[in-house]
Amino acid sequence: MKIAVIGCGSIANSQHIPNYIKNDKVEIKYFCDIIPERANAAVEKYGCGIAVTDYHDILKDDEVEAVSVCTPNNVHPVISMDFLKAGKNVLCEKPAAKTYDEVLQMQKVQHETGKVLNIGVVNRFNSAVQRVKKYIEDGKLGEVYHVYISFRAHRSIPGLGGAFTNKDIAGGGVLIDWGVHYIDLVMYCCGDPQPLTVSGEVFSKLGVDIKNYTYRQMWASEPDCNGVYNVEDSVTALVRTAGPVFTVHGAWAQNIGENETYIDFMGTKGGIRLQYGGGFKVYTSEYDSLVEYEPEFKTEDMYEKEINAFIGCIESGEKLQSHIDTAAITAKIMQAIYDSSEQHREIDLTK
Amino acid sequence: MKIAVIGCGSIANSQHIPNYIKNDKVEIKYFCDIIPERANAAVEKYGCGIAVTDYHDILKDDEVEAVSVCTPNNVHPVISMDFLKAGKNVLCEKPAAKTYDEVLQMQKVQHETGKVLNIGVVNRFNSAVQRVKKYIEDGKLGEVYHVYISFRAHRSIPGLGGAFTNKDIAGGGVLIDWGVHYIDLVMYCCGDPQPLTVSGEVFSKLGVDIKNYTYRQMWASEPDCNGVYNVEDSVTALVRTAGPVFTVHGAWAQNIGENETYIDFMGTKGGIRLQYGGGFKVYTSEYDSLVEYEPEFKTEDMYEKEINAFIGCIESGEKLQSHIDTAAITAKIMQAIYDSSEQHREIDLTK
Amino acid sequence: MKIAVIGCGSIANSQHIPNYIKNDKVEIKYFCDIIPERANAAVEKYGCGIAVTDYHDILKDDEVEAVSVCTPNNVHPVISMDFLKAGKNVLCEKPAAKTYDEVLQMQKVQHETGKVLNIGVVNRFNSAVQRVKKYIEDGKLGEVYHVYISFRAHRSIPGLGGAFTNKDIAGGGVLIDWGVHYIDLVMYCCGDPQPLTVSGEVFSKLGVDIKNYTYRQMWASEPDCNGVYNVEDSVTALVRTAGPVFTVHGAWAQNIGENETYIDFMGTKGGIRLQYGGGFKVYTSEYDSLVEYEPEFKTEDMYEKEINAFIGCIESGEKLQSHIDTAAITAKIMQAIYDSSEQHREIDLTK
Amino acid sequence: MKIAVIGCGSIANSQHIPNYIKNDKVEIKYFCDIIPERANAAVEKYGCGIAVTDYHDILKDDEVEAVSVCTPNNVHPVISMDFLKAGKNVLCEKPAAKTYDEVLQMQKVQHETGKVLNIGVVNRFNSAVQRVKKYIEDGKLGEVYHVYISFRAHRSIPGLGGAFTNKDIAGGGVLIDWGVHYIDLVMYCCGDPQPLTVSGEVFSKLGVDIKNYTYRQMWASEPDCNGVYNVEDSVTALVRTAGPVFTVHGAWAQNIGENETYIDFMGTKGGIRLQYGGGFKVYTSEYDSLVEYEPEFKTEDMYEKEINAFIGCIESGEKLQSHIDTAAITAKIMQAIYDSSEQHREIDLTK
Repeated sequence: MKIAVIGCGSIANSQHIPNYIKNDKVEIKYFCDIIPERANAAVEKYGCGIAVTDYHDILKDDEVEAVSVCTPNNVHPVISMDFLKAGKNVLCEKPAAKTYDEVLQMQKVQHETGKVLNIGVVNRFNSAVQRVKKYIEDGKLGEVYHVYISFRAHRSIPGLGGAFTNKDIAGGGVLIDWGVHYIDLVMYCCGDPQPLTVSGEVFSKLGVDIKNYTYRQMWASEPDCNGVYNVEDSVTALVRTAGPVFTVHGAWAQNIGENETYIDFMGTKGGIRLQYGGGFKVYTSEYDSLVEYEPEFKTEDMYEKEINAFIGCIESGEKLQSHIDTAAITAKIMQAIYDSSEQHREIDLTK
Repeated sequence: MKIAVIGCGSIANSQHIPNYIKNDKVEIKYFCDIIPERANAAVEKYGCGIAVTDYHDILKDDEVEAVSVCTPNNVHPVISMDFLKAGKNVLCEKPAAKTYDEVLQMQKVQHETGKVLNIGVVNRFNSAVQRVKKYIEDGKLGEVYHVYISFRAHRSIPGLGGAFTNKDIAGGGVLIDWGVHYIDLVMYCCGDPQPLTVSGEVFSKLGVDIKNYTYRQMWASEPDCNGVYNVEDSVTALVRTAGPVFTVHGAWAQNIGENETYIDFMGTKGGIRLQYGGGFKVYTSEYDSLVEYEPEFKTEDMYEKEINAFIGCIESGEKLQSHIDTAAITAKIMQAIYDSSEQHREIDLTK
Repeated sequence: MKIAVIGCGSIANSQHIPNYIKNDKVEIKYFCDIIPERANAAVEKYGCGIAVTDYHDILKDDEVEAVSVCTPNNVHPVISMDFLKAGKNVLCEKPAAKTYDEVLQMQKVQHETGKVLNIGVVNRFNSAVQRVKKYIEDGKLGEVYHVYISFRAHRSIPGLGGAFTNKDIAGGGVLIDWGVHYIDLVMYCCGDPQPLTVSGEVFSKLGVDIKNYTYRQMWASEPDCNGVYNVEDSVTALVRTAGPVFTVHGAWAQNIGENETYIDFMGTKGGIRLQYGGGFKVYTSEYDSLVEYEPEFKTEDMYEKEINAFIGCIESGEKLQSHIDTAAITAKIMQAIYDSSEQHREIDLTK
Repeated sequence: MKIAVIGCGSIANSQHIPNYIKNDKVEIKYFCDIIPERANAAVEKYGCGIAVTDYHDILKDDEVEAVSVCTPNNVHPVISMDFLKAGKNVLCEKPAAKTYDEVLQMQKVQHETGKVLNIGVVNRFNSAVQRVKKYIEDGKLGEVYHVYISFRAHRSIPGLGGAFTNKDIAGGGVLIDWGVHYIDLVMYCCGDPQPLTVSGEVFSKLGVDIKNYTYRQMWASEPDCNGVYNVEDSVTALVRTAGPVFTVHGAWAQNIGENETYIDFMGTKGGIRLQYGGGFKVYTSEYDSLVEYEPEFKTEDMYEKEINAFIGCIESGEKLQSHIDTAAITAKIMQAIYDSSEQHREIDLTK
């Protein structure tokens, strides 16, 4: 199967390309990037493919069956929809889009074309997450009635003043960058329940004073004092769903010097605290005893599983857990948090 | 000054009576309890006062200037109002009442009679809490925009099946029992800001199966398997105020084996994590450095300060921080959480 | 800007040369060392410059605007003054000279020529030291009335029997080698206060028996049993200044197996313990609480800052904190300690 | 032997009286205190002796051979001298007197009367101190050339505003209260060498603001906000003697949160760090190895040894290490530190 990679930045080079190369069924035909050096560098580094700067050049190539969209968030929709319409299958990096409206457009095009559109909500392929989902599905926790979602860091704004903190490019801050992963994996574990009401507030307090923002290290890129910072650095929300209630609490930056990045699933029979990116602890009771334990298991590479599942589902026709249909529900929640914050009142999603 | 103690249960014996006895200006004239043994035991133990079983007997005694109301929650309002109308000054244990409507009635009678009505929101006299308030007032944290209020315990329901877990007597569960202290002290630290919107959910999930509830220790009293459990064992809420947003998260019991009982005040310049009943940590930055420290200070007895301040304000006319007027705002928030949970939608308090 | 490096030993190779090379405005035209192999090695290693053995050859080159003097202490003055007189700007390694008299001569030539003469008191460019200075200047410590300066090591004499321990070359032992850094940075933090009285004693007790001196490691060079050891291995002094009193206590070697290398700044409002070469701890009180904390900050390379500041000030005309005028005050104190020790009585510097 | 105890305060009750009672040769005939209750209480508690309020009543009793003077510092001299002149032997608590002049008068009277006059420099009877003295005398440390005397505490002013901090009563602050013990035991270990020069500074910085002085605990008595604080809370000095040089550094209170209460004896062959009130560590080298060890030994009660030695020397005529003649040399040093601080210059004691 011939495929193309659109956008040759960090996520493409660290995850998509290496995992396509590992997959025997796949051959990368195009590396596309608007910066020619990046596309050329990929051709040279991986010893295959053709470098192009305009993705329209690929649309017409009938040999290409699938593409990975690894560009900045703002061009996810247009590129994904163009490829779907050209009859290609698409794996688009997360978040699907900056706004829920755009996600709905993408979903509509997917439905019309019938081609695959998966979103890079890669934690749905995470070994720990998949186990937590099984605990819940098998009723080990009883009814899961409340989930506490904490993605709080002390000083961890990425590339202050760059693409990450510019709303026109990224669509938002910590909620769309980190929160999407947390909320989406909770949705997955809980069976993607429809959201009913959403009340939330986002705060843009510490990053705005770019010059005086103190930090230990900065990932993504160095701060740009002349750059833009118009996204939220922290967020909180209360979400009622057809399943559990979610309490959301996240921060790229806050004046509390603790990193608390975990999810608590509270059920009537048991509970689980999942450390994001790590393992989890089960709390329950049996035979009149309180019990807690940390399952020990082998971790598989979630990106490799995601890529292989994408390729596999093109052939099998199987609908994956990362399908645009499920990603859209997560997007609906995030949009409602932003809307609720703007209006300072709860959003009723049942109307 | 002659005073009376109404209700000679645990809070009276552990705090009110000993601190009245320590206070040189005060003499306890009556110990009142509907259980005669309790009233008699107090007279004998403290070597002073007259034992009575009906508080109406005290109303007419002109010598009595002040009373402590230490009864179950459900009779706080009637007793307090009777004493106010009889011209006595009242210190009523927290919560003021089971519902906000009752609190408003109490407040009305206070305003009409002009006598003192303070509520036992004793954390307003706590040494750590008072310091946190000063940090905030002096602008050390900048704008405090978000407060996270966590009163989560693993298995800590008091007297399962008794007065604490019977809604008719207590008015509610963990929110009215523990939450009142947490929310009220946050209100105090933040200058008692008016609440604007409240969205919350309460859960009654673990205590209801009284027989099968597993626990390490139980305070207040032993479980009564034939008793009533119709209150919440956990709660979450999002509260917008004229000041900061509050995220509330509390549990008497939950299937997460961690006790996380602290409050995070997040400000633009600095933040504070206050351990409930303990000290606090300050996080800030200065001279381009991140700084954190735990102030070391001498702790004064908050109950002693509360009692002395009550007696003192009767003479001075000073309006205390524990006045019914401030306690009423906290009560308004708690009522709105219960209402929001019942209606599964946000309550708008500005209408 | 064309520059020359005089003396191609360890400090030149580890700090001066690499930082000149990093600086875009600078080109190294000469590497000078009386040992031709050293000068040649530098040319080869850095791929630039001309190797010379006699610095007089450089004096006449009009292209050269600045030089670093990285020779042994005894020839600092003559070389620095020759270059100043030749119209060059000079960065001379610390200590400025072996004696205060020589320092005064250097200062006189600087004043007459108007060219830059900075001394390598590099801790004035240290990130922690600069922060401590700010704490003091901003009054955070109140009045700093006493400073305890401890540079005590167990067994740390450098190159026993070599240039470091020969008074004719080095001018002294631990005081002139380590003490200069400690005392000078204290002077910087305290605003370079004029010294008033100095009473001190230096001791030459452990190194003198070269053969029987036991040690763990020896830096600079291996011991030379036929070498000379006529400098002090420990020192103590009491210095009154127009600002705080200094208590000085240092040892290259002592029979106490502790390394205590820190400076205590004692003020009326707060105090700081600065670990030499590391971070610092602030001790203070606020809101009736004792407070202590260790600021966390990013450390910049002090040598790079020193070199860049030297180049920068040649263009800007700015007078740096490492100017001969401030270094001279530190030299005055050190000279007075040696004099006081010789006379076993206090030196009055106000006369 | 009949004896009397003058001053029945804390040091008398905790040490002198119990140890006299343990001693078979001694009978306490008088308990004297200007506060009659104290004297009476002693008679009652110990079941012996006569209570008196005026020590003059005891002077004429021929049966009494010896007295302990346990009064405040300011009346040590007059009482001690009156008893010596009355033919009694005297053990006077430390410090001998507030000033060196008074000590000289006491010494003169001792010489004239020939009766015993010992001072309560009880560390001269301390098991660890006596061992350190032996190490030095036996040459184990070689020449001891420098002693660092550190009695630094963070917040430890006793009875702020009371007798301890009133110069008229106590004579001084941390130097006369703690320093006397440290300096005196160093003098003892080093063979009571004659002081040659003394340069010192005392600081009165933290205690003066009695109301705002923050502390953990306060010994001796609670702070008195209306009391007097006119003594030093910290001190530093450089003392040259016929033996080693002393560097002195002490604080009742300082804004450095460390308690460093030890003495370093630095010798050419070895060194000792003695923890005040505890054990000690020896640092030396042998067979080309660095060696450090902490001797383990049985500790005898130093007060019991002091009392028994006092009684013993009355009979034997032996001159003890705590004789006024040695205590006077320590007093000379302390006086010189105070004088030097007042004049801000070194005192030459050889003139």
